[in-house]
Amino acid sequence: MFQTAELGQKVSKKTFKEQERLLRTNLLALQQDLRRNGTFSVLVDFAGVRGAGKGSSANLLNKWMDARWIRTHAYDEPTDEEAQRPAFWKFWRHMPSRGQVGIHMSGRYSRPLLDYVYGQIDVSEFKHQLDRINNFEKALSDDGTMVQKFWMHISKEVQKERLESLESDPLRSWRMSDLDWKHYEMYDKFIEAAEQIITITNTGHAPWEIVEGENYNYRSLRVGELFQERLERHMVSEDFRQKYLAEMRATMEEKTGEQEKENLSNAVTILDQLDFSKSISKKEYRKELALGQARLAKLHAEALQRKIPIILVFEGPDAAGKGGSIRQITETLDARYYKLYPFAAPTDIENAHHYLWRFWSCVPRAGRMSIFDRSWYGRVLVERVEGFAGDDEWRRAFAEINDFEDQLIESGIVLLKFWMQISKDEQLARFKAREETPHKRWKLQDEDWRNRERWDEYEVATHEMIQQTSVKDSPWILVENEDKHYGRIKVLNAVCDALVTALLD
Amino acid sequence: MFQTAELGQKVSKKTFKEQERLLRTNLLALQQDLRRNGTFSVLVDFAGVRGAGKGSSANLLNKWMDARWIRTHAYDEPTDEEAQRPAFWKFWRHMPSRGQVGIHMSGRYSRPLLDYVYGQIDVSEFKHQLDRINNFEKALSDDGTMVQKFWMHISKEVQKERLESLESDPLRSWRMSDLDWKHYEMYDKFIEAAEQIITITNTGHAPWEIVEGENYNYRSLRVGELFQERLERHMVSEDFRQKYLAEMRATMEEKTGEQEKENLSNAVTILDQLDFSKSISKKEYRKELALGQARLAKLHAEALQRKIPIILVFEGPDAAGKGGSIRQITETLDARYYKLYPFAAPTDIENAHHYLWRFWSCVPRAGRMSIFDRSWYGRVLVERVEGFAGDDEWRRAFAEINDFEDQLIESGIVLLKFWMQISKDEQLARFKAREETPHKRWKLQDEDWRNRERWDEYEVATHEMIQQTSVKDSPWILVENEDKHYGRIKVLNAVCDALVTALLD
Repeated sequence: MFQTAELGQKVSKKTFKEQERLLRTNLLALQQDLRRNGTFSVLVDFAGVRGAGKGSSANLLNKWMDARWIRTHAYDEPTDEEAQRPAFWKFWRHMPSRGQVGIHMSGRYSRPLLDYVYGQIDVSEFKHQLDRINNFEKALSDDGTMVQKFWMHISKEVQKERLESLESDPLRSWRMSDLDWKHYEMYDKFIEAAEQIITITNTGHAPWEIVEGENYNYRSLRVGELFQERLERHMVSEDFRQKYLAEMRATMEEKTGEQEKENLSNAVTILDQLDFSKSISKKEYRKELALGQARLAKLHAEALQRKIPIILVFEGPDAAGKGGSIRQITETLDARYYKLYPFAAPTDIENAHHYLWRFWSCVPRAGRMSIFDRSWYGRVLVERVEGFAGDDEWRRAFAEINDFEDQLIESGIVLLKFWMQISKDEQLARFKAREETPHKRWKLQDEDWRNRERWDEYEVATHEMIQQTSVKDSPWILVENEDKHYGRIKVLNAVCDALVTALLD
Repeated sequence: MFQTAELGQKVSKKTFKEQERLLRTNLLALQQDLRRNGTFSVLVDFAGVRGAGKGSSANLLNKWMDARWIRTHAYDEPTDEEAQRPAFWKFWRHMPSRGQVGIHMSGRYSRPLLDYVYGQIDVSEFKHQLDRINNFEKALSDDGTMVQKFWMHISKEVQKERLESLESDPLRSWRMSDLDWKHYEMYDKFIEAAEQIITITNTGHAPWEIVEGENYNYRSLRVGELFQERLERHMVSEDFRQKYLAEMRATMEEKTGEQEKENLSNAVTILDQLDFSKSISKKEYRKELALGQARLAKLHAEALQRKIPIILVFEGPDAAGKGGSIRQITETLDARYYKLYPFAAPTDIENAHHYLWRFWSCVPRAGRMSIFDRSWYGRVLVERVEGFAGDDEWRRAFAEINDFEDQLIESGIVLLKFWMQISKDEQLARFKAREETPHKRWKLQDEDWRNRERWDEYEVATHEMIQQTSVKDSPWILVENEDKHYGRIKVLNAVCDALVTALLD
């Protein structure tokens, strides 16, 4: 694999100057196109052998293009903010938006590589982490992102020369660390692991390019030209893809629209099984509420100390009581340690990213709690029903969501998902009550009435969502909230029970 | 996940009859469309709980459509033919061609599920096998195949009733085995594993549908309707995809054609490093040949006894001496135990399958040797250079080929890949010699001269192929064959050395 990058390729200063000028013009023009059209983002990764030019190549891309629209990030030892969250949080954090170029150095491949070479993970875990990366890159490229990965390579002999010259140069020797010689000794191990990385993660949509890094002029032009070539190709293919998706979705909608409506009315869903007569007396409610809230306050204080992060997700039809259930939880908590995230339609900047991006940024750090009033499930609910997400998009979202939640759980987060449900009649009654109560009128919007007309469609979407995403480690908890008091206590107790389980672990 | 398929859904006999008639008409019409257009194949998988209707659903699909164009296959314990080959060989074997529907029962998911539930593989290996399946399904769906998977579900209670009624029915009790009650006891374990299977392998392009299997009428209609719906959608999306790919490829070719030609002449490739002065005296050649052939005959006899399968791949430009190198190997072997597969342009039936299909069928069983005179690498060589494979296709082929070879090696096959190389001048000399020698004239075709004009393009394609597919466990062996004798001995010795290593293992 790497012998093809040990050929001693060189480019003369003169050729370099000429080609660089040309390249620069082309890249700037392409970047302007990218910005103006803004239909996709670009994510470039530099990995490779120490001394093979990762840094200098990244610097050149910044120099050649307009650096204002490039987001470069070099990952170092994780900060404490980063260390307390799932591994991919930090990559989502520095994600370019559509129209931008992101450059990551020592990014997502760095940790698996080091851990494997140092023997801290075995080959199965190594492959598992590479599969995660594949999922990540697949999700981005399905969203249109151009993912490009450069492996900068030099031979062991050349690396030795590099390190010796660095060491003996008083102006640059500060850039050496003890690790450099240690890793040089481990060169073969690194190369063997790198070969596995490239073999497993070299996909059509997120390809690796191996670049011979010995000669500055050669490698710089090579990186620039490969980047230019790919960007040109991606612009063409992305244009076609968008056009084709738009046409396909229109045709699909036309074809299936009528038929689906027919099927809807007959559909039996898991929501039909809910027993809406479940209720609790006011007296009992008060008792349970006081007990539950006290218990929760104590448990959360303990979770905080034990650094267990918690995510609560609330979904359900309008007026199903999400807000009330959330309030009885938050009012017992210390406002410093939880955050409430209400989600509505995405903003412009959110829309310029992958749909999961805005949720990743709300993942809590150790000991904290994030409460989501509506969530990433919008993708398979409102976006599906309203047609904001294409058929292809919401269908693949189930796998993306399962992967996302699996990462949350794997990192130690306690994840609870509540589906708050009321009957259609009860919704009507609550809407009317809102209309009639001055201080509640603001809660009722035209949109709510429109959503209500699509009740059956939402039930079918919900049924499928539960089928596809209610898994052992993060099941949906269905809450019959016809009697608000009953529902609230069910939620409160479920949160407490989950915390007890987590604390006993 | 499965609670959504335990709702006791039922369909009356009357409704069933009505809907069945409609469904049948629709399915037949769709199948005719599929056959006539023949642009993609359909692969349906039935998995699920014993007694939930896998068999009866597969039978119904056969009944409702024209069974002549359906290839149904139920996988049982592997035959000895199957057991002696990589696990996926048997699935490629029963692959529908474009225009056909393939139905697999207890297919690719069966073995990982059983092995995991019985504790014969750990969770990492389980996930690894599921990733393999994901790669398989991705490769098929990238090729246009509609992959559809049904999980037929019944609750533990219903399964118990089913087994009891089966056991007490004299006409059907023969279908019970000891395993049935044993697996019933292990119900929860199976379900837990199934949940993992579905979570990991439920992708947008190869989705799982969970079907409640308790009621015959309900489940049958549900399977039929889901299949119909998906097939309709796939026809629309596949039409669009093909159109978009064709348009995109045309645009791409236009845009990049000129530029690429410019770059070609400057390209330095790994082939430039070969030393064509390497040679061997005639006397030494005879000695080495006799020794090597004797050694090979003995080693292959031993490999046969030890049941080690061997694959030799020969690639290289026209007249580079592939045939001669192969002959000196085969002439020492027993013709019963090796097969020589020369590959040229695909036939109609080969073209109606995924490009890897025709190579899968040549994978040798235990102890046998398969020799490929040209191979799957055509995808990234001639198909790339001649434009038979689109940019998107040959680029993703690297990953597909690495996955294919990884499966070969994992199953114990000794895989050797030889790249036979001569200089451009030497090729001309050999072409001329062929023209002038009556009994060799047939070997030279117009095509050879055309290929020669694209020498530089082939060198660049070869360089990239080596970069992407020369990995530690299956490296390319570059053979300087300017002196045929030198090259032949290098090949012969490499085969012997690899066999020695394998036999010592």
